Amino acid sequence: MSEAEFREIAKRVSNWGRWGADDERGALNLITPEVVKRAAGCVRRGRVFSLGLAFGADGPQPGGGIRFNPLHYMSAIGQPIGGDGLGFCYSDDVVHMPLQCATQWDALAHVHYGGQIYNGFSAEEVLTSSGASRGGIDKAAADGILSRGVLLDVARRRGVERLAPDVVIGPTDLDAAAKAAGVEPGPGDVLLVRTGHIRVFTEDRDRTRFSGAQAGLGIACADWLHERDIAAVCADNVAVETLPGAVPGMVIPLHMLCIRDMGMLFGEMLDLEALARDCAEDGVYEFLFSAPPLAVTHGVGSPINPLAVK
Amino acid sequence: MSEAEFREIAKRVSNWGRWGADDERGALNLITPEVVKRAAGCVRRGRVFSLGLAFGADGPQPGGGIRFNPLHYMSAIGQPIGGDGLGFCYSDDVVHMPLQCATQWDALAHVHYGGQIYNGFSAEEVLTSSGASRGGIDKAAADGILSRGVLLDVARRRGVERLAPDVVIGPTDLDAAAKAAGVEPGPGDVLLVRTGHIRVFTEDRDRTRFSGAQAGLGIACADWLHERDIAAVCADNVAVETLPGAVPGMVIPLHMLCIRDMGMLFGEMLDLEALARDCAEDGVYEFLFSAPPLAVTHGVGSPINPLAVK
Amino acid sequence: MSEAEFREIAKRVSNWGRWGADDERGALNLITPEVVKRAAGCVRRGRVFSLGLAFGADGPQPGGGIRFNPLHYMSAIGQPIGGDGLGFCYSDDVVHMPLQCATQWDALAHVHYGGQIYNGFSAEEVLTSSGASRGGIDKAAADGILSRGVLLDVARRRGVERLAPDVVIGPTDLDAAAKAAGVEPGPGDVLLVRTGHIRVFTEDRDRTRFSGAQAGLGIACADWLHERDIAAVCADNVAVETLPGAVPGMVIPLHMLCIRDMGMLFGEMLDLEALARDCAEDGVYEFLFSAPPLAVTHGVGSPINPLAVK
Amino acid sequence: MSEAEFREIAKRVSNWGRWGADDERGALNLITPEVVKRAAGCVRRGRVFSLGLAFGADGPQPGGGIRFNPLHYMSAIGQPIGGDGLGFCYSDDVVHMPLQCATQWDALAHVHYGGQIYNGFSAEEVLTSSGASRGGIDKAAADGILSRGVLLDVARRRGVERLAPDVVIGPTDLDAAAKAAGVEPGPGDVLLVRTGHIRVFTEDRDRTRFSGAQAGLGIACADWLHERDIAAVCADNVAVETLPGAVPGMVIPLHMLCIRDMGMLFGEMLDLEALARDCAEDGVYEFLFSAPPLAVTHGVGSPINPLAVK
Repeated sequence: MSEAEFREIAKRVSNWGRWGADDERGALNLITPEVVKRAAGCVRRGRVFSLGLAFGADGPQPGGGIRFNPLHYMSAIGQPIGGDGLGFCYSDDVVHMPLQCATQWDALAHVHYGGQIYNGFSAEEVLTSSGASRGGIDKAAADGILSRGVLLDVARRRGVERLAPDVVIGPTDLDAAAKAAGVEPGPGDVLLVRTGHIRVFTEDRDRTRFSGAQAGLGIACADWLHERDIAAVCADNVAVETLPGAVPGMVIPLHMLCIRDMGMLFGEMLDLEALARDCAEDGVYEFLFSAPPLAVTHGVGSPINPLAVK
Repeated sequence: MSEAEFREIAKRVSNWGRWGADDERGALNLITPEVVKRAAGCVRRGRVFSLGLAFGADGPQPGGGIRFNPLHYMSAIGQPIGGDGLGFCYSDDVVHMPLQCATQWDALAHVHYGGQIYNGFSAEEVLTSSGASRGGIDKAAADGILSRGVLLDVARRRGVERLAPDVVIGPTDLDAAAKAAGVEPGPGDVLLVRTGHIRVFTEDRDRTRFSGAQAGLGIACADWLHERDIAAVCADNVAVETLPGAVPGMVIPLHMLCIRDMGMLFGEMLDLEALARDCAEDGVYEFLFSAPPLAVTHGVGSPINPLAVK
Repeated sequence: MSEAEFREIAKRVSNWGRWGADDERGALNLITPEVVKRAAGCVRRGRVFSLGLAFGADGPQPGGGIRFNPLHYMSAIGQPIGGDGLGFCYSDDVVHMPLQCATQWDALAHVHYGGQIYNGFSAEEVLTSSGASRGGIDKAAADGILSRGVLLDVARRRGVERLAPDVVIGPTDLDAAAKAAGVEPGPGDVLLVRTGHIRVFTEDRDRTRFSGAQAGLGIACADWLHERDIAAVCADNVAVETLPGAVPGMVIPLHMLCIRDMGMLFGEMLDLEALARDCAEDGVYEFLFSAPPLAVTHGVGSPINPLAVK
Repeated sequence: MSEAEFREIAKRVSNWGRWGADDERGALNLITPEVVKRAAGCVRRGRVFSLGLAFGADGPQPGGGIRFNPLHYMSAIGQPIGGDGLGFCYSDDVVHMPLQCATQWDALAHVHYGGQIYNGFSAEEVLTSSGASRGGIDKAAADGILSRGVLLDVARRRGVERLAPDVVIGPTDLDAAAKAAGVEPGPGDVLLVRTGHIRVFTEDRDRTRFSGAQAGLGIACADWLHERDIAAVCADNVAVETLPGAVPGMVIPLHMLCIRDMGMLFGEMLDLEALARDCAEDGVYEFLFSAPPLAVTHGVGSPINPLAVK
């Protein structure tokens, strides 16, 4: 793909200015009260699925780069606090972790190109050692992220437990999965795309391979997502999109189109296995999805424990 | 209060063994599918309230102890990642923070007495430099925390914006607030008690006073909560209960009774102001409450961004 | 002082290019083997003085900014490691701390102006989220920092225990202190300038005042230091130079002239009290000075425990 | 070796009570002013060798446990601080690192057995989440660690560049190396034992093997060290002593005898290669050794940049 072709797609899917020149929430604006109400209406059985990985030394990071597994310290262990003969005690702890180390949201300021982040803010001005003054995860946290979730089980649709690492998911896959699910993804929805890749970590415990080549959305999905006014996309792989990517010379190009141009958050490393099994069983692929980011001031991401409620 | 009297209450409200000898989820077990369905049914207008404080240098900790405000670092700032002339870049970040520094859940292992945490596990065995092997927040995270939330606006009920620091909230207050709210708190509900104390931080920006003497639940509330099978209690102060406490010689005794004996999580430092205004306006004090803890392995707490959806 | 005047001094004291276009060690190059031998010759009584503050929660940082006191965690506490009946155990720990939080060296990359650090390297290229690729403390650590130390006890010379906060130390003070010390500061020496300001922290325990207005070297000292080819300057205050500074509109101008133009390291927050008492007693103000920085890769500073040996 | 035999050696080499019941400095007490003077007298050529590894992402830790390589963050990058047209800027940084991650001292509280650390202090009382209230590295830092250093180049003595991983260094090796060095190790000396193992890291860059089986001192060295009143022992391997150890069922038994019973600090992971080459060339194996630990409050170790000056 040429730079010109890329720019053409970017122009087509851009949401810059759509919600005002100062907007920092992007496609989350699509989650209207109507959408939230529809989301609540999806709760039929009262069953809650936690889609988050554990945050600990056993996490998915292979180490060696700027992302590592959470370091957890006890700052107080059974510290006495009175109660005389009763022996009252408390314990406290501290975590040191990359905001991108496990299940997480990418904030709008997480990626950029052409010197600008979403909505045209100058990357040089916005991004400093103090964090992201614009497009940070704190802006996304202000109204939570709660909407209707729709599972697109591409792996199942293709008849496998895990997609092969070189599979590039395209609009056809998304359409087929949506059709199989009996759901029409629409404005404000959060899409959960299942590749089965999470099993490389959760079953094989192979962190290096989990971080390596993997199936994911291809660049052709940008238009598909834009046309449907999807609010956010999550997946059970590392980057939502395929890695190392299907476009020679371009690293994570879909991040650029979705996060930077469309203003759409990506949710990464969700464990969709139990949810997918349940959806296959009852044939219901829509649910209430709740994944409120922590309001980390000027953060470019947030660890989460997303919930799907059916 | 004598130690004997304390032990008597403890015995009365204890849930040890109620959900099995190995149980580590405590009162969260009360959030049944029925309760979750009822919670979803509370969503009428689709309005979402984020109840979490920001996690940053401007947080509520006055510093000087083992709790401090989050430290946030950029591990990558606009790092080039290809895209040639397009100039693709990404940014990553890291947080270093006490799990108890702002809006948060106390896990069951957070406090104990008599050498035992909830359900009788040995504190000495459970609590080490590796964290809490039992009763950790990871156990609470497994099914999320999503239920019906009920706001008990005690400050409003008493006709003030903020309760005076020496106010000890008792069962009468809870009953009056529930009656005013037109809601009958019941099994599996999450209670949100408003004291107005959060304003000392959010309005006055007085961290020292925010951490000092404050209104909160008194020890007499233990029975009230137990009789109604409440799943968890949150408040807009530092410790849910009153500080320094109404029982001479006992520090955070309600923590001991609720967390250690009843197996009930406490949610602390929620900002309930906007939600309370809305409830006062429409007269509806129940809502869907979603506050999934991060699954910090063996953690004794978790930062959260709780959502109330009306 | 006008910008033009500042630039004139800068030009006069500049050491750029003096040790080659690639040099990253600056004035440390002045510590020749001859200087080191002379330093060793200063050891007469075998008495060692530790000049470092403690690195812990009780440190000098008042908090609230990007510098805070060290956070120390036990990652293992009496962890059993065999030995059967003997009960072998070990303990490990972790520190989280600003490299500038207590007694420390400023590396050459710590400050810059005009877009260039010492020796003309581009600040934009050198300084990234990965640290300082040029002029880092790792470059200074390569041969340690061990030389002859000379104490210039300006406070004593002026007849006070502590200089008043508005005292600007000038060349006359340095000359007088050197004369009183009976020492001629020369090439490769490390100067230790005593203001007595450390007592605001060590005696008064007033962190806010310790970080506030304070006596220190004035901008006129730049030429004096340069003419004598001093290798490094240390002091018992926060910034070696006076704060908020004697030059209107300029913050830490002496840092700029010494570190950026002369390539000279600053050692800050040394506790010189015991050493100064000893020097006053025996009349000997020269000694072996050893303050090896940690080789923090691309760090812009290093915590130290400097030793003076008489 | 039976537990009884171990206890017999322990009793023989014990220094408990030797420097008073409250002593927390152990064998460092042997570094008298006379010893320090003798150390300074070893400086003949003025050549300084830095023996410390770099503290950075490229450090020796393979990861996966509680020890990891230092994490370094820029808390300010070229932050403007006035100077108007001159454009003054500063940069600051923060490190997060295990005190045992690279070149370091083990404090006396680092290991214990039988419920007691050096000098009989109760391990349970001393070691908490607040660190080591007794026998911490802060106690060793009070007078620095500067003494005569003696290199015992066991690898060279045995005619190899690196000792094989299963070599257990015994008194015979130490005697032979000392004889070859023409030095008589004595009271207050710091021994530097060279195994060549550091090359597994510095040359092979094999962190896993560097942390694995390795040559080092055997348990028989305890008496030898004690008889000569050595102040501290350093080596170029991970644990000074051989790993996994020559005594079945006992992990790091020499740590126990030296640190806990003799009160002797261990210096680990020193890079002795350049120093050893120099000693082989000029035939001089004694030097001034300066390795002041950081006074980390209640720390059980400290990163260092040790210097040898010939």
